[in-house]
This record gives sequence, C-alpha cells and structure tokens, in this order.
Amino acid sequence: MNTARPLLACCLALALLPAAAHEPVTRARTTVNIPDIPGYVTLKCDFHIHTVFSDGQVWPSVRSEEAWREGLDAIAITDHIEYQPHKADLTTNHNRSFEIASATGDDLGLIMVKGSEITRKMPPGHMNAIFLTNSASLAVTEWRDAVRIAHQQGAFIFWNHPGWDAQLKNNNVVWYDEHTWLLDQGFLQGIEVVNGRAYYPEAHKWAIEKKLTMMSNSDIHQPLNLDYHVHDGDHRPITLVFAKERSLDAVKEALFARRTAVYSANRLIGDEQFLKPIFENSVKFNRPSLNLKGTKKVLLQISNASDLDYELERVADLAEAKVPKSLTLPARQTVLFEVSAKADAPAGAKQLEPAYRVTNLLTGPDQPLIVKLPLEANFTSGK
Amino acid sequence: MNTARPLLACCLALALLPAAAHEPVTRARTTVNIPDIPGYVTLKCDFHIHTVFSDGQVWPSVRSEEAWREGLDAIAITDHIEYQPHKADLTTNHNRSFEIASATGDDLGLIMVKGSEITRKMPPGHMNAIFLTNSASLAVTEWRDAVRIAHQQGAFIFWNHPGWDAQLKNNNVVWYDEHTWLLDQGFLQGIEVVNGRAYYPEAHKWAIEKKLTMMSNSDIHQPLNLDYHVHDGDHRPITLVFAKERSLDAVKEALFARRTAVYSANRLIGDEQFLKPIFENSVKFNRPSLNLKGTKKVLLQISNASDLDYELERVADLAEAKVPKSLTLPARQTVLFEVSAKADAPAGAKQLEPAYRVTNLLTGPDQPLIVKLPLEANFTSGK
Amino acid sequence: MNTARPLLACCLALALLPAAAHEPVTRARTTVNIPDIPGYVTLKCDFHIHTVFSDGQVWPSVRSEEAWREGLDAIAITDHIEYQPHKADLTTNHNRSFEIASATGDDLGLIMVKGSEITRKMPPGHMNAIFLTNSASLAVTEWRDAVRIAHQQGAFIFWNHPGWDAQLKNNNVVWYDEHTWLLDQGFLQGIEVVNGRAYYPEAHKWAIEKKLTMMSNSDIHQPLNLDYHVHDGDHRPITLVFAKERSLDAVKEALFARRTAVYSANRLIGDEQFLKPIFENSVKFNRPSLNLKGTKKVLLQISNASDLDYELERVADLAEAKVPKSLTLPARQTVLFEVSAKADAPAGAKQLEPAYRVTNLLTGPDQPLIVKLPLEANFTSGK
Amino acid sequence: MNTARPLLACCLALALLPAAAHEPVTRARTTVNIPDIPGYVTLKCDFHIHTVFSDGQVWPSVRSEEAWREGLDAIAITDHIEYQPHKADLTTNHNRSFEIASATGDDLGLIMVKGSEITRKMPPGHMNAIFLTNSASLAVTEWRDAVRIAHQQGAFIFWNHPGWDAQLKNNNVVWYDEHTWLLDQGFLQGIEVVNGRAYYPEAHKWAIEKKLTMMSNSDIHQPLNLDYHVHDGDHRPITLVFAKERSLDAVKEALFARRTAVYSANRLIGDEQFLKPIFENSVKFNRPSLNLKGTKKVLLQISNASDLDYELERVADLAEAKVPKSLTLPARQTVLFEVSAKADAPAGAKQLEPAYRVTNLLTGPDQPLIVKLPLEANFTSGK
Repeated sequence: MNTARPLLACCLALALLPAAAHEPVTRARTTVNIPDIPGYVTLKCDFHIHTVFSDGQVWPSVRSEEAWREGLDAIAITDHIEYQPHKADLTTNHNRSFEIASATGDDLGLIMVKGSEITRKMPPGHMNAIFLTNSASLAVTEWRDAVRIAHQQGAFIFWNHPGWDAQLKNNNVVWYDEHTWLLDQGFLQGIEVVNGRAYYPEAHKWAIEKKLTMMSNSDIHQPLNLDYHVHDGDHRPITLVFAKERSLDAVKEALFARRTAVYSANRLIGDEQFLKPIFENSVKFNRPSLNLKGTKKVLLQISNASDLDYELERVADLAEAKVPKSLTLPARQTVLFEVSAKADAPAGAKQLEPAYRVTNLLTGPDQPLIVKLPLEANFTSGK
Repeated sequence: MNTARPLLACCLALALLPAAAHEPVTRARTTVNIPDIPGYVTLKCDFHIHTVFSDGQVWPSVRSEEAWREGLDAIAITDHIEYQPHKADLTTNHNRSFEIASATGDDLGLIMVKGSEITRKMPPGHMNAIFLTNSASLAVTEWRDAVRIAHQQGAFIFWNHPGWDAQLKNNNVVWYDEHTWLLDQGFLQGIEVVNGRAYYPEAHKWAIEKKLTMMSNSDIHQPLNLDYHVHDGDHRPITLVFAKERSLDAVKEALFARRTAVYSANRLIGDEQFLKPIFENSVKFNRPSLNLKGTKKVLLQISNASDLDYELERVADLAEAKVPKSLTLPARQTVLFEVSAKADAPAGAKQLEPAYRVTNLLTGPDQPLIVKLPLEANFTSGK
Repeated sequence: MNTARPLLACCLALALLPAAAHEPVTRARTTVNIPDIPGYVTLKCDFHIHTVFSDGQVWPSVRSEEAWREGLDAIAITDHIEYQPHKADLTTNHNRSFEIASATGDDLGLIMVKGSEITRKMPPGHMNAIFLTNSASLAVTEWRDAVRIAHQQGAFIFWNHPGWDAQLKNNNVVWYDEHTWLLDQGFLQGIEVVNGRAYYPEAHKWAIEKKLTMMSNSDIHQPLNLDYHVHDGDHRPITLVFAKERSLDAVKEALFARRTAVYSANRLIGDEQFLKPIFENSVKFNRPSLNLKGTKKVLLQISNASDLDYELERVADLAEAKVPKSLTLPARQTVLFEVSAKADAPAGAKQLEPAYRVTNLLTGPDQPLIVKLPLEANFTSGK
Repeated sequence: MNTARPLLACCLALALLPAAAHEPVTRARTTVNIPDIPGYVTLKCDFHIHTVFSDGQVWPSVRSEEAWREGLDAIAITDHIEYQPHKADLTTNHNRSFEIASATGDDLGLIMVKGSEITRKMPPGHMNAIFLTNSASLAVTEWRDAVRIAHQQGAFIFWNHPGWDAQLKNNNVVWYDEHTWLLDQGFLQGIEVVNGRAYYPEAHKWAIEKKLTMMSNSDIHQPLNLDYHVHDGDHRPITLVFAKERSLDAVKEALFARRTAVYSANRLIGDEQFLKPIFENSVKFNRPSLNLKGTKKVLLQISNASDLDYELERVADLAEAKVPKSLTLPARQTVLFEVSAKADAPAGAKQLEPAYRVTNLLTGPDQPLIVKLPLEANFTSGK
C-alpha cells in the first residue's frame, strides 16, 4: 500500500534545510569480536607504532585515539632510536612520544606500553624493545649494548619484519649468527610473523622451532585510515594476547609466556591450544542433536559470533551421513548445514564427528587447524 | 616498512585468473539485536506479507527465505481474499500461498502464521486475520461475516494501515462506528501503528486508548530488497513480540495479551514496560562508580549492544555534576560519557541519576521514554 | 574549532521524531560504466532469466524492474518449455511471462527479447532460443524439432551452461556429435562462457574455435538480490553487445555477427578487437608527456572511468626508464604512476611504450590482453 | 542452475592461504563530481587546515595526501600564528608547515596555497590570510598590524567561523565595529558561511549584503578520517571556486572576484548564477519531448551526473499536465519522472516548464533555488 504519513514527514516539512545525509562522526569504539579462551582474556594489541617523533606522520595522541576506536586493548609506541628524520623541526627526546600518547591512552582506558625500535642494518635488522622504563638509554653506538640495556630494563624484545625486502640477502630471509647470539643471551623473546600486510612463513617456522613469541603488528606510519579501510572492516594486524587479566603486567607476563596469536586480514595464526578454543567459542549449532529419517535432508543452523569468516573444508567423507564438503561461516551470521543419512546407514543413535580443515586458521606454515563438529544423530528408516 | 611477502602473494602468482572481487552470496541469517526482557523472549515478526497469490510479486517460498536471512522469528502470509489480480494465470486457492511458504519456513525454523487480508473499502478498510485454520472460508460477501468466521477460527484480527491515503476521509484518519462495532464484538485486537515506512500517530493514540495491540508490518509486495536496502541495515518494520517462548502458541498468546512493540527505522514505539527494559538491557557503563576529584573531567565509557542508535537528551541539569547535554549511543559501539564535579559540589559519596529523554523511543505520540543512568560518584577536593 | 550551529540543528529541534536513518528506497537506475567502442554502443544484456512461469521465484515484471535498476539495456525472458514445476498452480502458456515482463520493460525503456529454454538431457543439454515470435510452438517431443522451429522463427540459439555439473560426463565437459549436428545445420550461434558465477574454459575455447558468440548470463531464478549483493557492486554476469544502435534489431544483428564480450565479476572475456578499445576508452594519463631529469622520480596520474578494476602486470622491463612492475587501476579512480630514467638513459625525446598484461581481461583461456601505455618522455641530465 | 566451475576455483585450490578479504589500500584519488559552469572550471578547495605546527595532529604532508585522495584541487595550510601548543617540542617557524606540505602537494599536482590563521579574541575573532609570501611577518602584537601586513603581501583575508560558540556574545553572532573597520580598509574579502559541520545563517546573510566571498572550510585538526567517514561519501566542507583555469593565480583571481559557492554535506549554498548552471549541467531527461495520449501516464527518465542528491519540490501545479509533486534525484543515478495530461488539456504541441524548488540548493538563508524542467509535450486525445 502507498502510505499517507511517512516517518520522514517531519523533515520534508523543513525542506529548506533538510537533515545532513551523514551524521557527524562520533568518537566511538568498535569491539573486535574474538572470544576469550579458558583461563584467559583475549586482548587485542599492536606493539609496533610510529609517530612524528621518528618517521611517522601523526602526533602521538592520534595513535591512542585510533586504537581506542578500533577496539584495541593495548598498544606500544615504538619510535626509532636511530632514525629521526624530523629532528630539524622536532625534539629528539626518545621518551616524549610515549608521554604524549599515554596521556590520551590513559583517559581512554588503553593499556599503554612504552617501547622503542632499535634500528640497525641486517644483521640483526630492526628490533622492538617494549616495557622500557627509559627509551633514551638505548641511544648507544653498539646494537648489542642497546639490546643489553633494554634487557636490563626488563624489556620484551622482538625481531621486526624479518622478511623486509630492503634487508634480504639475495632475496632470502636469513637467520644470522647474530640472532643466535641474541637468543642464547636470552635477549630475544619474539618475532614478527606478520608486519603490516606481509606474512613471513620463515618467521612463522622459527617462532615454532625456537620458541619465540609470535607477533603481528601494524608498523603504522601514516594515519591508520590511509593504510586500512577501517570503516569497511579492513583491520590492522593484531597480536592477540591471552592474558590472565586486562592489565599491563598481565600483558607482559603473557608475552614472555608465549601466549599470543596472529590476527591478520581474515586469518589467525598460532598454536592449536589457542586457535582451537577460539574457534570452539565462536561457533555453535542451533541444536546438538538431529533425527535422520530415511535419506531426507535435515537443515541444521550453525552460527559464528566472531569477526572472522571461517573457511571450512571437510577432511574426509563420513561412513553414515552426508555433510557439506566445504562451508563458509561468515562473521556474526548463521548459515545452513545440511545433513542426510546415507542409504545404507544402520538405524540407531550415533555420535557424528565430521572433521574439517579451517583453512584460514594456521597452526604452522601451510598447516590448517583441524576441528570436529560433534553431532548427536538418530538414524531411523522410512521417509 | 615496505614488506617483502604480501599475504596476497598466492593470488598474484595466479594472476591470469585472480579471485573474484565479490564472493558468491551465501544463504546467511543476520541476527536482529534487540535484547530479551525479564520473563520474555523478544521475537522479531512481520504479520503482513503478500505473494503472487494476491497482488505480490514473488513466489511464497521467497518470503520465508527473506525473513530467515533478515533474522525474523515469525511471519504471517496474508494475501488478499478479495483482490487477486493474477487470477487469470494463477489458482485462486486462498490456502495455497501459506502451504508453499511454510514448507520452506519450516525447514528454516521459522514460526509460520497462516493469515489473510480482508480487503474492503473504508469503513472498515483492510484487516488482517492471522492464526487462521482455513483462509478459504473468509471469501464471503459481507465483511462482518468474514470477520466473524475468522474470529470463530480463533484468529487475531487487526486493522491495517488506518492512515492509508487512498482511504482517508477529507485527508483525515477516522475511527468509524464500524470500528467501534468490531471492538465491541471482540473482533478487533490490534492496529497497525506502522505500515511500511508510514507511522500513524492516530493509530498510536487509539492503540493506547482502546487497548489494541500495536503492530508494525511491512505489507511487502515486491522482493523485499527492492523496497529496503537490507545490506545496508535498512530493515523492514518489525513487530516485536514479547513471548513466553519461541513458539507459534506463545506468539499468539503474546499478541492477544498486547505484549508487542513497534520497531521501525531507528525507532521503538510501545509501552514503557517494554521499552525501558530493552534500553536497560542494551546499554551499560564500563564501570559503575567514579571518583570526581576537584572539577577534573572523568571519561566513562557507555556501550550499546543493540542494533538501535539511541538518541539521548538530558532532561535537566544536575546540581552536583556536569554530564553530557545530548548523546548518541550508536548500535554495537561504545562512546565516551564525560562527567565532572561542579565547583561547589560537596565532598562525599553520592548516587547520581541523570535523566535523559530517549528521543527515538516513544511511549506515546510525541512522548519519548525517560531513562535514568545510575552512577555512584565519589566527590573529593583537589586537582 | 568546535562549532556553534550544526547543520543538523533543524532536526535536533525536532528530536521527538528525528529523521529516519535510512531514506526510503527510490526506484533508481545505476549506470554500468563500460565505454562504447568505435562504431558501436556497448549494451549491457542478460539473455537467460526465469520467472514463476517455469521454475523461477518472481513474477515476470520483477525481472524488468531489476534489470532497469541495475543499468541493463536488454533482457530475454527464457522460461523452460519442458520444466514447469508450478503448473499445478499456474497457467502453462509459454508466451505469458514475456507478455507480463515486457509491459513493464517497455515502460522503462528496456529492450525486451522473447525467449525460451529448450530443456533436454545431455546431449544436447539446455539451449536458449531468443528473438522468438511464438514460444508455444517449441513444445514438441523431439529437441531437433524444437530447435528447427525456433530457427524458422529467426531465433538466435545458444548452448546453456555447457559445464553444468549435473550434465557432465565422468566429470568432463564434452562436445557431442549432437552439437556438431546443430552447428552444421546452422542451428547453433552461441555458447555460454559464463553462467551465474561459473566460467567454462572449454566453452571459451569452443567459442573461439567454432566461431560461436560468447554469452554471459545470470540464469537467475530467485529475486536477483538474494544471489548478488547488487548494493555493494556485486553484479550479475552480463553479455556486452556491441551494437550499431540501441534497438532490438541491432542487438539481434550484433549477436549473429558475434560482436559480444563477457562481463563477469571483475573480468572481461572476449576478442582483442573489443577488449582493447574498452580498456583504451576507460583509461587515461593526466598528461601525455613528461620530463625526466636525471633519475628523479616523476608522478603521473592515471585514471580509470570504467566500473572494472584493471589489474596490470608489466610484460618486460624498459631499457631507458623504470615504470611500475604491477598496478591496479581501481574503478572510477585515479592512481599514481611513477616513472624515472635509468642512470644510463641517453638524453633526448623518446616515445616510451611500456607493455602490460591486463590479467582480468582475457582474450582466451589463460590469455590476458596485452596493452601498451604510450608516453612521450624527454630525458635530460642533471638533478 | 548449479554450476560446475566457479570462477573462484583457482583460489579454492589454494585453500591453505586464501586471498585476503581486503585488498591493501591503494593511494587512489576519487573525483568530486560537481560540473563546471560556462566560462569556468569548478575547483574543489579547502582553505582552512591545521597541522602539528599549530594545534593540529598530523604532519603537514598528510594534508596533501588526504586532499589528493579526496579529489580536491587546492588547499591552504593555515596554522595559527598565536597558538602553538606544541612549541615545547616543535619549531615555531610559521613558514615550515607549508614548506613540508607543498613538497608532497606539488608532486601530486595540487594547488598549494600558503596561509596563516590570525588568532585573536572577539572582536575581531579569527581570520585566515591566504596567498601569503611570508607567514612569519604576521607574528606581531596588534591584530590590525597583522592584517595590514597580510594585505600588503597581497593576501585574501576572511573571517573564520563567525558563529563559533566560544566567541559568541550572549549566544549571538555579532558583526562588530572592528569588522566594519576591516571591510572599510579593504582588508576583509571573505567569510566562512560553513566551518566544519556548522552553517551560520548570519554569515550567509552578511556575505550577500556586504559582498564578501563565501567560504566553506574544514578547519581540520585531526586526521581527516577521524572526523569524516570519507569512505562512505561523508565529505569535508568544500569551497567551490569557479576559476578561469586550474592554477594558483586563477584561484586567487576567483576568490577576489567572489566566484565561489559552499558545498557542505548534501547542500550547495551560493549565488543563483553559480548554482543554476551546476544544477543544469548535472541533470538531464532521457528525451526532450513526449507524446501524451489521453490521460495515459508516460515515464520519462531523469539523470543526475553529480555527487549531490538533488531534492525537488514542485512550486505549483501545471494547468495541462500532472507532474511529480516532489522528487529526489540521487547522485549518479537515473529516476523516473511520470507525466500525464489532465483530462481537459487541449490537443496540440505545448512547451511545459514545471518549476521546482531545489531544497538543498540555497541562494540565501531559507531561500531555495528555483529551477524549471523544460519539456516539449504533444497532447493528443484517445487512449
């Protein structure tokens, strides 16, 4: 029916100055929906961030505002020690950017981590030291001294963008003796598996082999919106930290204890002990059991409460029943899951456990997580 | 840093047939986030829907598919009894469209309600009878007979689009003697306060005065996407039903008991007993108490878990503290709520209860809901 | 500066009934931006469409409304002759769906093509006959007779979805003797290279070898919005027809003359004589010439007026200058194109013609179009 | 039909590392579609912009990058002379921010205008002086001296945000004697009618009465994306400059000659001589003439090539024909325009000129532009 009184009438009457098509932008925070796991809260963090105080393009307070709006829990400001291209215009005080950023961050309830980037040619390349007490002390000639001083301040130290093309050797990502030295001294705890939009399979492998904490950071220089379409769900890389609570100390404890995972684009990368409960706490069927009568199809519904689109591929056919060969579980939506008994399935109750590869959840390079979707099925004959 | 190995590398290598920019559309259901209220589940329903079997443009199964995808719980198929413009091509069986729609709806777990639209000139205009057992019986000459027959089938009957311009009297929305007769006979239980994009303040007033159930329905004829940008959050009008459980019987019980509210565009319309708990179950502060030291500003954070953007305006200034004059709480986001003590506020603990009008939640025509935002404040002197 | 009088003031004053967040959907047509080519207008067409009169889900007029809104120029209604699952409810008149659809289509200025789908098991599978005068005549027992009758009506006939999995032979797409017979008789003029979201490389190859017209059609059954996110730029497959004018006769002439290309997702597929001028008429530099002083980088700007994102990869390095190795030209946007002289480039004027593969424009299976980007460069020494 | 070979197949095969859901953000420029007018190009400009060198939050080069991406032609960097809150950390050189911004702006082909904000309490409030040669000279005690020095440098000077609430007098926007003095001396050429999201009707009136150039500027301090959802079409306020060519000198000439208009949200504000040709060059019917047979409805199509949604309301009924009472012409789309002869319309050819108010194009406060839509109609009798 055409209708007499549109809800818009109030504005049409005011036609000389109609309402703006776009509301003013409100300062608003959007949650990142990745569930907690048993025993830990899942904190969303970015530990590699620049400001005008090194080669970044924004005032430090912008970094806190961006992180708050994007739903992060913790950030580290990590301006370069050795590279300050704005120094003709700006103070060279290495502690200053954190000071400014944390004033805003504290007001917004962010966990603010003080850091610096030790910026050297390869080897050893660039390293971030975070949880520093005084960044200025790192401004020394020898990189080994800088690392030692950071370590003495209790810092967590990680190797940045090991696969950065400007520092490759004959186009290869290389683990040098210098990295072995750092590891042996207990000076190196983590490694960036993802930096910006780049994923380094070698770093992923080394993190597993050498027991380094996996990091996933933006290394952002510009206003974040110039590099990521955050309004369209294009998020910066995030280090998921599985912490005992939402506090600075708990973040630090978790990093040293290697309880992290990588959240980059539509992927999670990390140990099965973290990825599996994230998946399991994201996904559920609308009902745990189903009656399969003859070979009639039954539609279950499967929901995904997280912000990831899970991509599933069946590992193997089931003996008794047909289940989907592949399946996408879109973020914050529910999809259909069709089950039917095979013609020769015996009658009776039976626990089905179809196994799927989640192709965007990686426990190692090229190694997708395997999950099982448990279903109580009751098979009966007839139509 | 520029990076060596983009995550996209796998596809760039395949450049001759890169991945599609757009994934195929999956059959997926999006939840409508309006919280439950104490004692009841909040079901999302549309009780006025057409198909090709009257003057609609889609096969009945489409209506179930659309409703499932859009997160509805219950729909009524309500083709016209007296108006069948496709009858030269199509069967005139009044029960057929429900039969087809419910096959799909049952598979998808929707609550399917059988209805018909009794389609007469004004008075009494158009009425929907829902929870029918046999639509065909309503095809009689006298509208009073049709209504009586529907009533005898146990139907819930409501007046459709009372403000439809094609049926106005000198441009006025009129309550006729015929409507009084319907009411007196116990034949009329509800009224559309919203139909499509039209809101009828008179119908709203009558619903309150005459104790009619408030309805908000789409009256959709075309594919729903041609009338609503559902991908951009432009939802059809929805009747919220506060039911004891998610079942056909519970929906019927709630409708007769007048436990409904209108959800149209970014507005809720209904009784305070329903709107207030919806607001309260949607919104929360990040912490219940705050320390106000001197006149320093403190930033609280306030979250809204619902799909509505709540628009708040302060009813009155507080004696002791400054709080925001107006505030938007965007759907599924968190915003800042700035509080500061006034200069002359006495020291000590004090419960603050700033009152706000929620201008898009209406308990009557032009009557916004008033809510209080309780805060435990502790006032101390100093800076 | 914070500002005193927001443009929204008019509405805030009206807070009791603020404007709807979403405007009512207007019936509006969005242009498909693919440029014309020399001598021809580029018409956007879909020649495979179903309605409730066979196994589709919408009334025929919806197909015209959808096509008009989506910027199409011509559509064919092609209900199945042999498959009418709604026949218990609906007339079996094979001419009826076109009659209804064209009433709306004519009003909207669409070119309406009468068609039918001859629906047989493989071989020969399904075929569309379009530009029919009487669909009912095709309801005969032998498919060869149906094709002959269509041909006698002057129809253009094409093979539908040759790679449809329900009709494969041991999972292979097969050209049967029956197809050779059709071709030899002059009964088969075209082939679907794309149907829905499927691309058939074999059909692509056959279209080239056997001089068949390439078709790209939706084969849509549901409301189009349920299969394509048209609000987000996810378009149905389109057959581009290069016609002498925008008329029914010109479309028919062009189809018989094999002047078509496939537009599916973000790809064009077709002969170089069509793809090259489309690219060239889409893309231009902000200036035709540039001065290269020493090895200093110069930023040209390159614009793409079409709706395609062109994906370019450099074929080979240039002797004198550095140009981008790969480049995306996003739809309706301008990007930067960085050029610099190589250190040993001789001074003087020089026409540069860097060659690029456009990886989403295919002239054959796995065969991207090669384009040259002509630039007048003037090399001088110095900084 | 279900289809055998999805275009996505190449990626599904690569399931262990599927393509990212979001492509990396490319540096890309989006055109602002507002047509040129006879004799002039329509340049899109923002003459009020801050950086870290006063109280802004970004490095100056960001301002050029943002402006280029958003389709602007010219920007002025206008840091405060008297307000440098970052001066403990940063140089106080008033010429420095322009120097940095213009290096990037020149590379990107932007017209870069050097400016400064003379920042005083009211009266006279804040003023921007643009086209300066040396900003440092403006750092003097007396504001009259600062203005005089700017004037001597050939600057164009305008009053910023006259309705800024922090500088109102008893909540009123006031024209002071100081402003009269500025005007009389020839020191004041323009006034901000829009600043950020605020529109000042008084300034609009004064611009008309006192022959000041109308300005519409962002006064942006943060990264622009934190204040405007530029990805969703929420643009900053823009001063449209009608210039003889795209050059710095031509912008300056046009500003002194008062050839500007305001483009803010979905509104244009300015003189009829500019707004009318913009409308006329944006909008056109699909055909200039129509045959009206009896009272049968005819559907014309009307297109709008601009980025504005034009909102039309009919000024008066036509004697001979029915035309739409109100109409929205959405940006870059085509809508239907229904015409029918009235029952008593005489036969014969007749030029129709229905007049419409364009309610979002203002030639004065509360004064919408009136446009005529010329149509050649031929009336004939019959059905």
